[in-house]
Amino acid sequence: MPNDAPPALRRTQRTRLRRFAKRADYTLDTINAILDEALICHMGFVHEGQPFVIPTAFGRVDDRLYLHGSAASRALRTLSAGVDACVTVTLTDGLVLARSAFNHSFNYRCVVVLGTATPVTDPAEKELALEVFTDRLVPGRWADVRWPTRKELKATSVLTMPIEEASAKVRVGPPVDEGADLEHEAWAGVIPLATTVLEPEPDPKLAEGYPVPGYIRNWRMARPGS
Amino acid sequence: MPNDAPPALRRTQRTRLRRFAKRADYTLDTINAILDEALICHMGFVHEGQPFVIPTAFGRVDDRLYLHGSAASRALRTLSAGVDACVTVTLTDGLVLARSAFNHSFNYRCVVVLGTATPVTDPAEKELALEVFTDRLVPGRWADVRWPTRKELKATSVLTMPIEEASAKVRVGPPVDEGADLEHEAWAGVIPLATTVLEPEPDPKLAEGYPVPGYIRNWRMARPGS
Repeated sequence: MPNDAPPALRRTQRTRLRRFAKRADYTLDTINAILDEALICHMGFVHEGQPFVIPTAFGRVDDRLYLHGSAASRALRTLSAGVDACVTVTLTDGLVLARSAFNHSFNYRCVVVLGTATPVTDPAEKELALEVFTDRLVPGRWADVRWPTRKELKATSVLTMPIEEASAKVRVGPPVDEGADLEHEAWAGVIPLATTVLEPEPDPKLAEGYPVPGYIRNWRMARPGS
Repeated sequence: MPNDAPPALRRTQRTRLRRFAKRADYTLDTINAILDEALICHMGFVHEGQPFVIPTAFGRVDDRLYLHGSAASRALRTLSAGVDACVTVTLTDGLVLARSAFNHSFNYRCVVVLGTATPVTDPAEKELALEVFTDRLVPGRWADVRWPTRKELKATSVLTMPIEEASAKVRVGPPVDEGADLEHEAWAGVIPLATTVLEPEPDPKLAEGYPVPGYIRNWRMARPGS
């Protein structure tokens, strides 16, 4: 019989969810959609025994993550061969207000990727990563900008990490109160959150009346709480 | 002479910013304002040599962070005495579109707190933490809900961490292009982002027409991109 299950990652000891295991999702469709929607990621690594968590720009190309490495320069300075890392992306979709304090929660979609981050040294691969960082957030932007010089590429550090050992965790839907709590007199429900785009602010150095291009004017981040 | 500098944390080797040091801020006003505005934090810890970064609810009381511990249960199961941790909070305020690809950036406000997270065992302190988790996001909510039982408090794990070794990093303002790039033909500026609140969705189990209380109806998260 054919296997109709959607492509998914293997669950490992390290990515197996202990709490709320029913919220776990290992399918690539779910994992990739969350990664592609997020503005930034949080990268965790260890330096001299201390964990650090640093926000940074990132992008995905197929089954690889690319990370803007400057934020991790603390780690990069000492570990050129590769660094054990955890890249986490979280979209906060709503506040879940239950009748009981105990059942308050967030609606969220989160991906945790474990693995080894290695520096990208090939200039072409580096430039591709920069293009992805830019164009995945503002499609069409890359064609408009002055592309990086070889010197700038050298000054940019980019890390890459395979999306092999990863899991998504998703909570959706209304609060879950039970038993007598359902009689408790309090409004209950979800306050949905969204990330919205405000009016673009032109660089003061731009000529007065410089036209806002369509890819910015028409760009609306139609995405919940990223 | 009196010292009129605002209260600030001591810069340590570990919190000293290497890159863009001018963006660093160690004053408590800045650090606390960012912490108080964020919806969630990302907590980093090491388990069996692997760094993990987990999003979780949190709150601040004076110079202490309280963290919803269930997300860290992987660490808590093995380390009851305390865990080296890094708590990071990031607000993404805008996309910074420069003329040069190299100078693209985010406007953001970020706080990194380093230290040891220890479990809160005192029920009263635990309950205070839960109140802070709830009321700092939706002021007025706590008075309305069914408060936790002793059993629920026992089932909730809360970590606490002093805000002693911490730094903020902030980028604001327009893109910074230089020299010939200023002549490059491309729109440049900032696309501001904001987290907004959509229409509350009542729990389907709520009676038809159940009134939405004022603290929810009038609550608007007047905060940029948290």
